[in-house]
Amino acid sequence: MNESTSIEEMIEVLRKAPSVALFSHVSPDGDCIGSMLAIGMALEKMGKEVSFYNPDPVPRNLAFLPGSSRVRQELPNLVEKTLMFVDCTDLHRVNLTMAEISGESTILNLDHHISNEYFGHFNWVDAHASASGEVAIALIGYLGVEVDRDIATNLYTAIVTDTGCFQYSNTTANTHRLTAELLDKGIDLAIIHHNIFDQKPLAQIKLLQSALNGLEIHAEGQLATMTLSLEDFQKSGAEQGLSEGLVNHARSIAGVEVAVLLREAGVQEIKVGLRSNLWLNVNEIAAQFGGGGHQRAAGCSLKLSLSEAKQILITAIEEALEIGRNH
Amino acid sequence: MNESTSIEEMIEVLRKAPSVALFSHVSPDGDCIGSMLAIGMALEKMGKEVSFYNPDPVPRNLAFLPGSSRVRQELPNLVEKTLMFVDCTDLHRVNLTMAEISGESTILNLDHHISNEYFGHFNWVDAHASASGEVAIALIGYLGVEVDRDIATNLYTAIVTDTGCFQYSNTTANTHRLTAELLDKGIDLAIIHHNIFDQKPLAQIKLLQSALNGLEIHAEGQLATMTLSLEDFQKSGAEQGLSEGLVNHARSIAGVEVAVLLREAGVQEIKVGLRSNLWLNVNEIAAQFGGGGHQRAAGCSLKLSLSEAKQILITAIEEALEIGRNH
Repeated sequence: MNESTSIEEMIEVLRKAPSVALFSHVSPDGDCIGSMLAIGMALEKMGKEVSFYNPDPVPRNLAFLPGSSRVRQELPNLVEKTLMFVDCTDLHRVNLTMAEISGESTILNLDHHISNEYFGHFNWVDAHASASGEVAIALIGYLGVEVDRDIATNLYTAIVTDTGCFQYSNTTANTHRLTAELLDKGIDLAIIHHNIFDQKPLAQIKLLQSALNGLEIHAEGQLATMTLSLEDFQKSGAEQGLSEGLVNHARSIAGVEVAVLLREAGVQEIKVGLRSNLWLNVNEIAAQFGGGGHQRAAGCSLKLSLSEAKQILITAIEEALEIGRNH
Repeated sequence: MNESTSIEEMIEVLRKAPSVALFSHVSPDGDCIGSMLAIGMALEKMGKEVSFYNPDPVPRNLAFLPGSSRVRQELPNLVEKTLMFVDCTDLHRVNLTMAEISGESTILNLDHHISNEYFGHFNWVDAHASASGEVAIALIGYLGVEVDRDIATNLYTAIVTDTGCFQYSNTTANTHRLTAELLDKGIDLAIIHHNIFDQKPLAQIKLLQSALNGLEIHAEGQLATMTLSLEDFQKSGAEQGLSEGLVNHARSIAGVEVAVLLREAGVQEIKVGLRSNLWLNVNEIAAQFGGGGHQRAAGCSLKLSLSEAKQILITAIEEALEIGRNH
């Protein structure tokens, strides 16, 4: 479990293993699926038997990825095997516990999350990497496998999704350098981007419509709020999860520092998403109501009606904006 | 006017010039402003006197660019000067004609548009570059000026805007390699992206709301239409130009091949924007109504009411989808 020597040892384990079972996390995204498929395809090029596992089905917008149809929701044999976990901070992310894994199995853990729990026998965690895709590129390089177009398509998808098209602050010069090498493999950017970004369920667009119809501007333009009632979800046919990201439409309005999306998850059960742009610490706002998160993105839950919850949030944020302005 | 020798000669002219007047095009974007400022700041580092001209004010979302406050709307002296045009296909893009420029001036033309008219005494047009920003990086390299953080911020903005965050098909491996070098200069991605992308006028969000309220799905989910009436523009307080890009919300719905935005620019004056995703040639649709454009993005105008125009477009597109499906 020595971190610093794990990379070379992990390569050694993979070289020797006749077969490798690969795992990625629940609610899969482009990084975990793309990185897992890329590593698996590289191992197959080395003549190894490979299986791919995810607790959930591959999302529709990632179904185009080469190899995605091979991702299974049935657990593989966990006894006397080489098990490789990709993009998972801990085993819970795969709905597993250590007790379920045979003591004779070898656990490899490849990730980029700073909160990774180093649960593997060999752990390769690079918190400076924008995506596990970056770590996967390094791994494939160490294994001496040439990245082909299909592997590059998976790796590019891993990076472009986890960096929000190279916009998030996890994007580094190295991210762009690695991406350049993937483009050298002749991947089709138009097809990739269309598949990833242009597969929005109609219900999500209808939910955006509802959210915009409830848009309010407060605090002299610095605060934008949106609400989604149970009725809005019913009308649009959208599940609660489809509201993710909608708050950014409010955040992107000129002059807005804080954006809030309040959604009714049940009766007297309001989920609040908070985003700020430049200076307001929304983690502190969320903490006032028993929630938390980061300085620029946080959340909390309130046992109130939608309108009561909105009013309480507006008051708290107006106060925080007022205090901030006077400092 | 020999293309192939122009690069070295352009560098030579710039080295010798004591002062350079820089020009960028009407309706300025991140590429023309960012590239112009970057080149000008590099020339100043060489001790030259520099002026920046644009016929229009710098847009609000680019006001953060280092040097942007120095961009003037008053024409500089056009006599016996070195004049450098950045990102301009021809002089009309700067509201100028050749007659207005003294015969003793030297015209330099740096661009990346394939339609560039080679109007300069020295022309450097690289149609493989994703942005004039890429050409500007090469120019600054030839001039031997080190790119500092402010220059890098301008160049990054040029590239990120003209490639749509590295999503458009003009993005190459070289684009990412050059971008990596700009990130090495310590530019602040969070601030840059916030300024460029999160400055949407409230009126534009309200216009999106109106467009979504009129969203219709036809042709078994393959066609999405949105309409904006004169009343919608009045209610939202938005100018017609703010409707640009809204059609992409309809295009991004899963299963949609064609998206149409019809907007009422005046009584019986309907402007139509057409976008397709994978195969339908919308240029042919637009051509049926006297319009045109490209295979995946085209437009036309119709002297009809909004509802009449919509019905005619739906019929034409349903027919084209039907024919396409049967081939």
